[in-house]
Amino acid sequence: MTASNKNFASDNVVGASIGILTAIAAANGGAQPSYGADDWSQRVERRLREVFETDLDVLLVATGSAANALSLAALAPPWGGVLCHEESHINNDECGAPEFYSGGRLLTLAGAGAKLDPTQLRTHSLAKIGDVHCTQPTCVSLSQVTELGSVYSLDELRTIGAVCRERKFRLHMDGARFANALAALGCTPAEMTWKAGVDVLSFGATKNGALAAEAIVVFDRSLTQELAYRRKRGGHLLSKMRLVAAQMDAYLAEDLWLRNARHANAMAQRLAGGLRGVTGVSVHEGGDANILFCTLPQRISDGLHAQGFHFYGDRWGPGVVRLVTSFATQAADVDALIAAAQRLGSS
Amino acid sequence: MTASNKNFASDNVVGASIGILTAIAAANGGAQPSYGADDWSQRVERRLREVFETDLDVLLVATGSAANALSLAALAPPWGGVLCHEESHINNDECGAPEFYSGGRLLTLAGAGAKLDPTQLRTHSLAKIGDVHCTQPTCVSLSQVTELGSVYSLDELRTIGAVCRERKFRLHMDGARFANALAALGCTPAEMTWKAGVDVLSFGATKNGALAAEAIVVFDRSLTQELAYRRKRGGHLLSKMRLVAAQMDAYLAEDLWLRNARHANAMAQRLAGGLRGVTGVSVHEGGDANILFCTLPQRISDGLHAQGFHFYGDRWGPGVVRLVTSFATQAADVDALIAAAQRLGSS
Amino acid sequence: MTASNKNFASDNVVGASIGILTAIAAANGGAQPSYGADDWSQRVERRLREVFETDLDVLLVATGSAANALSLAALAPPWGGVLCHEESHINNDECGAPEFYSGGRLLTLAGAGAKLDPTQLRTHSLAKIGDVHCTQPTCVSLSQVTELGSVYSLDELRTIGAVCRERKFRLHMDGARFANALAALGCTPAEMTWKAGVDVLSFGATKNGALAAEAIVVFDRSLTQELAYRRKRGGHLLSKMRLVAAQMDAYLAEDLWLRNARHANAMAQRLAGGLRGVTGVSVHEGGDANILFCTLPQRISDGLHAQGFHFYGDRWGPGVVRLVTSFATQAADVDALIAAAQRLGSS
Amino acid sequence: MTASNKNFASDNVVGASIGILTAIAAANGGAQPSYGADDWSQRVERRLREVFETDLDVLLVATGSAANALSLAALAPPWGGVLCHEESHINNDECGAPEFYSGGRLLTLAGAGAKLDPTQLRTHSLAKIGDVHCTQPTCVSLSQVTELGSVYSLDELRTIGAVCRERKFRLHMDGARFANALAALGCTPAEMTWKAGVDVLSFGATKNGALAAEAIVVFDRSLTQELAYRRKRGGHLLSKMRLVAAQMDAYLAEDLWLRNARHANAMAQRLAGGLRGVTGVSVHEGGDANILFCTLPQRISDGLHAQGFHFYGDRWGPGVVRLVTSFATQAADVDALIAAAQRLGSS
Repeated sequence: MTASNKNFASDNVVGASIGILTAIAAANGGAQPSYGADDWSQRVERRLREVFETDLDVLLVATGSAANALSLAALAPPWGGVLCHEESHINNDECGAPEFYSGGRLLTLAGAGAKLDPTQLRTHSLAKIGDVHCTQPTCVSLSQVTELGSVYSLDELRTIGAVCRERKFRLHMDGARFANALAALGCTPAEMTWKAGVDVLSFGATKNGALAAEAIVVFDRSLTQELAYRRKRGGHLLSKMRLVAAQMDAYLAEDLWLRNARHANAMAQRLAGGLRGVTGVSVHEGGDANILFCTLPQRISDGLHAQGFHFYGDRWGPGVVRLVTSFATQAADVDALIAAAQRLGSS
Repeated sequence: MTASNKNFASDNVVGASIGILTAIAAANGGAQPSYGADDWSQRVERRLREVFETDLDVLLVATGSAANALSLAALAPPWGGVLCHEESHINNDECGAPEFYSGGRLLTLAGAGAKLDPTQLRTHSLAKIGDVHCTQPTCVSLSQVTELGSVYSLDELRTIGAVCRERKFRLHMDGARFANALAALGCTPAEMTWKAGVDVLSFGATKNGALAAEAIVVFDRSLTQELAYRRKRGGHLLSKMRLVAAQMDAYLAEDLWLRNARHANAMAQRLAGGLRGVTGVSVHEGGDANILFCTLPQRISDGLHAQGFHFYGDRWGPGVVRLVTSFATQAADVDALIAAAQRLGSS
Repeated sequence: MTASNKNFASDNVVGASIGILTAIAAANGGAQPSYGADDWSQRVERRLREVFETDLDVLLVATGSAANALSLAALAPPWGGVLCHEESHINNDECGAPEFYSGGRLLTLAGAGAKLDPTQLRTHSLAKIGDVHCTQPTCVSLSQVTELGSVYSLDELRTIGAVCRERKFRLHMDGARFANALAALGCTPAEMTWKAGVDVLSFGATKNGALAAEAIVVFDRSLTQELAYRRKRGGHLLSKMRLVAAQMDAYLAEDLWLRNARHANAMAQRLAGGLRGVTGVSVHEGGDANILFCTLPQRISDGLHAQGFHFYGDRWGPGVVRLVTSFATQAADVDALIAAAQRLGSS
Repeated sequence: MTASNKNFASDNVVGASIGILTAIAAANGGAQPSYGADDWSQRVERRLREVFETDLDVLLVATGSAANALSLAALAPPWGGVLCHEESHINNDECGAPEFYSGGRLLTLAGAGAKLDPTQLRTHSLAKIGDVHCTQPTCVSLSQVTELGSVYSLDELRTIGAVCRERKFRLHMDGARFANALAALGCTPAEMTWKAGVDVLSFGATKNGALAAEAIVVFDRSLTQELAYRRKRGGHLLSKMRLVAAQMDAYLAEDLWLRNARHANAMAQRLAGGLRGVTGVSVHEGGDANILFCTLPQRISDGLHAQGFHFYGDRWGPGVVRLVTSFATQAADVDALIAAAQRLGSS
């Protein structure tokens, strides 16, 4: 990863951390039982129990959409609804996977910074309850980090968790960028999940150093057996599961996941700091982790693209662009973008 | 892969060929567009067009069940049926994935050696056509290699293809062990597929040297767009697709796929030859590729298990066991099993 | 219904009993709450509680396929299987409705007279339990009367119920011809259902005097709420539910349902008695209710069809025909068929 | 229907027109082929071809939700979206039936008076086309009459039809109150449907004089065969179809459908006229057919409820109530409500 990297489009445009790549190779030799009965899968489960300081079950899959859709299928019956933010990944970027797997519906709410607003949640969660003509909300799904780069505080999570308990909804967390959120909050994994009321977590590693490794972390273990059948029925049970398990094992070892996340977050902060000094650039509030939204003058935006920097700017209103850092982003890459923006801004 | 390997349970209990492992590592560096727009994905598609000597489209996924279920969803509508063998993998080992994805039904037929019998196929394909109370057969799925280790001859494939054309059914091939079949027949990939009438192929690499790499090869390209949406909706579109694409690229390079398959098949022949010389052992007809079914005296079966050899023997009638070889099976492993059986047989 | 009726094709080729027709008219006037909150719906539920001597819930629908599919959706999860007879209506005549509603699979068993064989049931119910690659059986569905016209004895029902309890399966009864079975056995509705272990019953009225009225009778009331949402989601909640409720109310009043069934059964017995006296005709065993299977010489079969008698003879092997009587079958109609057969047989 | 009727809650709280009731009785006698091969079903199809002045196919069902959900399943694939108004019945009142049947998603748009806004439609229909992460809009569904009682003009319909042709979307019309809209516009059925671009119509009779009779009218006849299987698979194919067919036959005979609709509309106009004269009452714009929205002072609303008038007022904002008239509403009923409101308003 020493080559310069001008790609700030997403944290999925790079490969894996070296430690994870090495782990895949190390896991390759010898015969192992297939379908998740291998050594690494067992070790990952034990390790995640330590990390989350509780009993839990783990189902490994290769994509975040699979983790989300399977989780929601276990939490929402076919006549049930998933309360979620209108900006959420499950609503906008999974081509209907959650509905395909659960049979239910997404019931979308607004809320600043792509965060669920507890007051709205409370109100909407009461609408049409018991009315047989209407999809019944049965669970809540929130993204930590959100699609706009913001991070729920522990207080915010606990409030949502409390609404869920009150309404007897179950709570799912889309943690595609779980480590980035954790690094931003500086709390424990337990505090950010089951202690706040989370029942099932999509624990992502792909965006933060793995190639394809996601864990469905099941705190409400009454759902595990069902999830195992659903995973197979969805075609998501890898025969040579060691491929995913070894990645996740290395991800969790020696705090690689936290180190990667802290680095990505630091790069985003560095980027934010630099861009704030560029005339005409406005860095939006709420970039708490590794995603930054900014408003750029057209000249800067066009100029950066022309110089080979990659980032998206076509879907959030005039001038708004998204910049994403990752474990692989180098300080030099960040500084190069800042410098280019400065030159473009002052020319 | 130099350690001795006593595991004949399946061709999915070993890791990857070194060439494939190396390719994963080589593909790791640098930024690449995600979701299949990477260089390796493009190269795999070009390469498969050469291999199959025709225009075609390719969708990569991580599991064979995903490849099968997505393919069948494109071939059978929700009120449609998939004519398949009662012993087929899609019927017995995918926990309902084909039905989940297509909404339709599997309509099972008998047939010697787990092969579809064209006469039965012709008869059943006419039953209840146009009867609104009944699921309507719309496609045929066959496994090449079959679950009993047999391989359809080109003539057999062409006959089934002809029935399909006659009945306006489309034809799917589950090629989880495509290379092993091809090596057994010594024909071209084109002859074994679209020239015989196959519309969509699940082209497996996982069992023959990859860790998790399967291609949906679409000869009827009118289905491609639909399959792309279905893949995403099923959660099977990897963001860092390079992981799968690099495996498939290396698999196809320098005939690795064919060399691996020929080796696995040769190991099965060596095993068959050796076991035929063991008193009391009967090697079944039809082990044309890398799967062997034998009837063993209980004493031999128990003895082999006790010595650490792995194989399944609990599901095909008294004394019947299945032995599977792979690219990683060594001649010494085979000889060790034969020698052990001989000792047990003569003791 | 005074006109002669030569139609023995099915018990759904005639209209409604006069009492039921009258009830529809009587229920027509005045405003009533829609969607099942009407007076007749309430009365039907009370009446069915008396009939079955237990607390239960009732969901009215217009078709038997809806009753079956909704019931099975509540009893089998998407990864679950419904153990049923290969000759059953849900397997052969509902175009995949049970799978559509439940997401699960039908797991078919053989058995004489279209009855489930408890030994087979016990064996198959253990196959692959806990194997994540395989659809898991979670419930049993049996038809009382069966598709071959046979009726389970109370002992047979209790044995199946016992297997279900043992295996923790739930039990569904397809009672499209419930009244005919009850009349044949001379037992109580309770004995034939919940006392034998039935959890949900499709209680049919359409074939026995109604125009379109079926009740899902829910003995396991933990399933009721789910069924209410599933019914609406399936489009089976009639707004002017009085249409169905009034039919069912009249059906249950003054034992119309039992009188109709006894009459239909008696007509079948009369038919069997007469046909047994016709040279060359063989009346099959097991015609316990209102369905008769016979083997007829081709000449008789053709001759009866030529004289305008309707019945099916194209799907049960050479010479086998099915004759169905109903509440509307007249003794004269039966006698006319017998006389015609005799003339044809002796000519 | 001579008793006074204080129920303005919906047009589904009353029974059937006498002519329809009589037709059910008249159709009851004699044997008829089941499952829609009866005489009345054939006649209804012929009659609808005359009414709509074109070739078309007809599938009868018992509920409007079934008609809508089946229609949309034929128009939207599982990865497809249905563009519809956020106030539409399919979005709010069918408990997810459209998604259950099609597998796709509803993509909701705003628009005054619950009408689709062609400009919004054009914009949204272009969003994310071809993006594999997103549900792809494939059809448009509009309600004529809308849920707010408004009626699209022919020009408005043609504009939407033109957008659909331009975008290659197909067009569904939810015509639960088709006759009321037709009566309001005074145009021909052809003008209001296929001439404006409608491919499939849910042609409702239940709310306008039948007990349970809806027709899926298929102008794009390439969809008919699929719909026939889907209807059976959904459990919506009545065995004694004469029950529904006879209702529809009588509904179409002697312009009963238009007479009923004109009467219902006239009653709504009478009601609007009267209420406009009541101090403090505001009758909303757009009550073009048989549904009226008004804002009432709390005192009047409470007083009317206390006097036994039924109508909904709990879901459209403070003081807003909905009043629905039907074929069975009498002028005296209307006048009684007006008089009561006047007394309450002036007290």
